[in-house]
Amino acid sequence: VHIELINTGRELLLGRVLNTLQLWICRQLADLGYDVNRQACVADDGPQIQAAVRESLSRSDLVITTGGLGPTSDDLTRDWIARLLGRPLAPDPETLGRIERLFIQRRRVMPASAKIQAMVPAGARVLRNDHGTAPGLAIEVRPNPFRAEGRPSWLVLLPGPPRELRPMFTQSVIPLLLSEFPSTEKFVCCILKTTGLGESLVEEKIAGPLQKLVQDGLDLGYCARIGEVEVRLGARGGRAEKIVNEAEGIVRGLLGRLIFAAGDSSLEAVVVGALTEQGKTVALAESCTGGLIAHRLTNVPGASVVLKCGLVTYSNEAKTDLLGVQAITLSQHGAVSEPVAREMAQGARRRCGADYGLSVTGIAGPGGGSEGKPIGTVFMALADEAGTTVERHFNPYDRETFKFAASQQALDLLRRALLPFP
Amino acid sequence: VHIELINTGRELLLGRVLNTLQLWICRQLADLGYDVNRQACVADDGPQIQAAVRESLSRSDLVITTGGLGPTSDDLTRDWIARLLGRPLAPDPETLGRIERLFIQRRRVMPASAKIQAMVPAGARVLRNDHGTAPGLAIEVRPNPFRAEGRPSWLVLLPGPPRELRPMFTQSVIPLLLSEFPSTEKFVCCILKTTGLGESLVEEKIAGPLQKLVQDGLDLGYCARIGEVEVRLGARGGRAEKIVNEAEGIVRGLLGRLIFAAGDSSLEAVVVGALTEQGKTVALAESCTGGLIAHRLTNVPGASVVLKCGLVTYSNEAKTDLLGVQAITLSQHGAVSEPVAREMAQGARRRCGADYGLSVTGIAGPGGGSEGKPIGTVFMALADEAGTTVERHFNPYDRETFKFAASQQALDLLRRALLPFP
Repeated sequence: VHIELINTGRELLLGRVLNTLQLWICRQLADLGYDVNRQACVADDGPQIQAAVRESLSRSDLVITTGGLGPTSDDLTRDWIARLLGRPLAPDPETLGRIERLFIQRRRVMPASAKIQAMVPAGARVLRNDHGTAPGLAIEVRPNPFRAEGRPSWLVLLPGPPRELRPMFTQSVIPLLLSEFPSTEKFVCCILKTTGLGESLVEEKIAGPLQKLVQDGLDLGYCARIGEVEVRLGARGGRAEKIVNEAEGIVRGLLGRLIFAAGDSSLEAVVVGALTEQGKTVALAESCTGGLIAHRLTNVPGASVVLKCGLVTYSNEAKTDLLGVQAITLSQHGAVSEPVAREMAQGARRRCGADYGLSVTGIAGPGGGSEGKPIGTVFMALADEAGTTVERHFNPYDRETFKFAASQQALDLLRRALLPFP
Repeated sequence: VHIELINTGRELLLGRVLNTLQLWICRQLADLGYDVNRQACVADDGPQIQAAVRESLSRSDLVITTGGLGPTSDDLTRDWIARLLGRPLAPDPETLGRIERLFIQRRRVMPASAKIQAMVPAGARVLRNDHGTAPGLAIEVRPNPFRAEGRPSWLVLLPGPPRELRPMFTQSVIPLLLSEFPSTEKFVCCILKTTGLGESLVEEKIAGPLQKLVQDGLDLGYCARIGEVEVRLGARGGRAEKIVNEAEGIVRGLLGRLIFAAGDSSLEAVVVGALTEQGKTVALAESCTGGLIAHRLTNVPGASVVLKCGLVTYSNEAKTDLLGVQAITLSQHGAVSEPVAREMAQGARRRCGADYGLSVTGIAGPGGGSEGKPIGTVFMALADEAGTTVERHFNPYDRETFKFAASQQALDLLRRALLPFP
């Protein structure tokens, strides 16, 4: 199945907003074994939307567009696509009624412009929007005037707001996909997430040993993020499972504890899961990460049970007052030092009555570096009843990258303590 | 100038990673008055990269690609583009020397595969990489065999890692752009960032009054994010400044204090800026936002001076122990209530000796809602020497969206206290 995705929205081309819809839609499709062959962004401009849709229809079995179905003047997708396909628009009474009820329910006055969203091109299926006003539309283009021999395609128009698009995709688009494009080939994919080594070094360790399987059809890919390298092992066909299982065994054997998860889990989810399972709690003392570790942990449902408390202590005063770091330790070693990291972790653990105390102190920049401790230097410590471990890392990046890398290293320190065996 | 951007990387089409490069590159170009006309993602697949580049070259004055220049086996861009253009590759000694020195400097062993990155197509300019191994390449395609009448184009190949691409873009691509495509028309753009109203309502307030200016050439756009709507006012040509200034005056008159920034500033940067200017400090008591407010504030350089401390207090125990919230208040009203928000803000302020205490307590979900306080309910309070203000909001979204919306509302509560006049 050849699939293309077209995201409309000038804000995407002006660099005002990240294309989170692409991430989400591609992920959903990949998990079902469908590949997106190409993705494109075009502005909210009628002729440009038409041109992109026409090109994609000439190549694809399924074209998905996002955005441009709303009520404002730059919402043009519905109109220009109806025109491209030569299908007149007419109001759909059911949709109109639903929009009117939604405004009543939200206790808001319905602007006249909202009615435009109930216009539907002839022959289109309405995909109900349970979380907003504009419905989606699914159009079977048969014959497809833009494709060789008129081969039919499906064209699916989805609204731009993620809260509206996501449930609509799950409820309406996936069933359509499964019934119109049933998969003929088995597809198996295994993702192993690692932390602690760069992409080149991960590849150097595993690429050679996997070479034979690659020749047998293993699709081997890497994806590097800050503090994280994902290894993707995929295969299709009757032997897919065997190939992927064998590859997974090889990678696990070679990377061992560098692997923190198989599949989708984030490092913070692994940590919260392990704490929950073991009935343990953690207290945080964050200086340079500034609350990011607490934020990441609390993104995981159920974190409230295992996170005793989080203390963001930038100033020496807060380190002394809230964590009990000794003034003499601060003055002798400086706030960014092994002894201070140690006392912060111990202080957080003691102060909050947690099983683990985890601390981070470092120099995020842009100011504050010195020769012995350049910008990017960070100390982190983990205290438990047995003692305290301190690590020093060096993340010479911009401020936000530094914070994320440090949060990743600190969470991994805790993971390795919680899960000592691979 | 017709510009197209091609991002290569299977991980983008598999939905494993957000396209942050697109955001950044488009933003840089927009700020200089250049429009990106189209953006596309294709997999790390030689023929697909070739096809996409060929199509873009047939339409564009400038084509920028990202990714696929590294040392691993799925880095194919350099090779396949050299082949498309019929240009042989040869090693560039200067680049090779730089890569070797980089490995020595990082105290790492250089893998043999790293040398591939020093291969340069005939006639290409090398764009030095000061933050990584793979250099960028700029190729003047003259004549351009894919374009009508052989009209020339520039093709710029950039590495995928943002830390490498960004400085390279600033140092090498922008100067190339300015010298090869000097702008002929004045371009003025003003961005006004608002919070507190949805996109439809913002448009309803301003679209009518701006209609005349739109007819005169004002380019009016909206961009909605969680808790934020951006109004974009742009114009080109001799009267651009006059048109944009007049539009800005109208929008400011109508939206007033809903506007928190002109241009690029985030709400957290505005808050840190105002606190710094006024010599004030803030202490945070976060329950359901779980450290996100502290994280956002500490993303702003200089935040360490104004953020006295941040306390992430999920449990009742932590609220009592660290913030001094009374047990009876918790038992009578529940942790998510106006009185608890009030005591949390007052407690954080007092405990940390800050000028302001800012608190948030709410129900992020997925669990924990009740009839009177459904999931999405959040209370926030701001305490200062004059008293305490409490607000109740309702953000019935998924967990992460809820957290962001609540953090935005809380930061805005502080902003309005710091900057009471528009």
